[in-house]
Amino acid sequence: MTKTITSSNNPLIKQLVSLKEKSRVRKKTGQFLVEGKREVSLAIKGGYQIETLLFFPDLFSESEAKAMGSYGISIIEISKDVFQKLAHRDTTEGVIAVVNSKSHSLETLILNSKNPLILVAEAPEKPGNVGALLRTADAANVDAVIIANPKSDLYNPNIIRSSVGCVFTTQIAMATTSESIAFLNKYSFNIFSAVLQKSQPYHIQDFTLPTAIVVGAEATGLTKEWRDAATQNISIPMQGFIDSMNVSVAAGILIFEAKRQRNFK
Amino acid sequence: MTKTITSSNNPLIKQLVSLKEKSRVRKKTGQFLVEGKREVSLAIKGGYQIETLLFFPDLFSESEAKAMGSYGISIIEISKDVFQKLAHRDTTEGVIAVVNSKSHSLETLILNSKNPLILVAEAPEKPGNVGALLRTADAANVDAVIIANPKSDLYNPNIIRSSVGCVFTTQIAMATTSESIAFLNKYSFNIFSAVLQKSQPYHIQDFTLPTAIVVGAEATGLTKEWRDAATQNISIPMQGFIDSMNVSVAAGILIFEAKRQRNFK
Repeated sequence: MTKTITSSNNPLIKQLVSLKEKSRVRKKTGQFLVEGKREVSLAIKGGYQIETLLFFPDLFSESEAKAMGSYGISIIEISKDVFQKLAHRDTTEGVIAVVNSKSHSLETLILNSKNPLILVAEAPEKPGNVGALLRTADAANVDAVIIANPKSDLYNPNIIRSSVGCVFTTQIAMATTSESIAFLNKYSFNIFSAVLQKSQPYHIQDFTLPTAIVVGAEATGLTKEWRDAATQNISIPMQGFIDSMNVSVAAGILIFEAKRQRNFK
Repeated sequence: MTKTITSSNNPLIKQLVSLKEKSRVRKKTGQFLVEGKREVSLAIKGGYQIETLLFFPDLFSESEAKAMGSYGISIIEISKDVFQKLAHRDTTEGVIAVVNSKSHSLETLILNSKNPLILVAEAPEKPGNVGALLRTADAANVDAVIIANPKSDLYNPNIIRSSVGCVFTTQIAMATTSESIAFLNKYSFNIFSAVLQKSQPYHIQDFTLPTAIVVGAEATGLTKEWRDAATQNISIPMQGFIDSMNVSVAAGILIFEAKRQRNFK
């Protein structure tokens, strides 16, 4: 019989609420919450191990939960009260998974293609920006994303949500800027740092060799370390009144110029 | 002597609060509020007529206000209380302008270049998306933006804010989808509608003739009208797990491919 939890005071539920709210607890336990059918499906497709699946029967059927969770995982029915306590979104699909973290060290990255394409984002400030970058990375099927000097953990509910689950579908490493540069140099990447100083227009570069495209935080730009480490600093010609673009739009333009040069192969 | 208002119950302040909050009042009066130094400056650069400039002296000096408003406009000092009532943002620069609307009919668009480039957005849902599209339009210096079947008025405080003032620096027309298509046909534009159905990859198109790039709402995509009116439907190859991109990222990729083909001229 399926286990049912109806009280928000249940110790497991209390533990899950702190998992939702606290980066510290996510790090300590190595677990995090994923909400929504699509997001949970993408986590499974991305090779994440689901520990527990919780469903609220008014919105998500037990048979759906069992179909999703055909991996010997524990399935728990929860009451409306408990669901609302755990849910991050206003509207949702009645399913929440407890998922085991993966390692995101540089050493875990697998680069199979001959001329890999990597998107690097240094210290992105807003979860929404990280999410948008990861959507672009998924669409372009880049070989990996590196988040240098990250400002939050990857399993922040706002990152999962704004990435619409793409946080699970792309290889992601998190490291310091120094470690990231050392890694890219070790594998002979051309490093293209998106900055205005001493830059050339992006569209006259050759992005067909092993390529890392590096974007900085919207407010502060890239650090000197990335500018100094660049094979070439690049910029998008700005022909209007303002001098900066949305970071996820800029990354999209640069990454898809690389894809175009590679004939989307 | 500069006029001072210290009470939120002042009839002018009450009127301005309703201008901030209500699209209906903005339409009726033909006025709207702009907040922040950069935004007010861009409105002036964009040829908007400032009616009144209000400043809160702890954050913005009277001399700055007078320098900005050297156009015979009325300048009013306001108290902290009044400023907080009028301000839309959490942090701001102590200056708010009452600005006269412009006409945004298709007939007002001035297309001087031989092969104009226009960005069309159909029924964009979120003010944040409109703002990001307008930032891209400014950066690319497109000839015009058309918002077809708009969902909100252009002077919504969230649009002004998320566009970082680019709502003032680009020619913008608002019209129905039918009117917009008729306009583009009249001036022999090639219409490229971004949809998946019967589409070709964007990067093998020729965007060097008079070109309109049309993007739809993120949730629903473009209407059949735009698909039928297209010279060519285009899509960005999606090579990952998800099937849609952020609309402002997609527009950025398409517009800058057109710019690249035109050598940023």
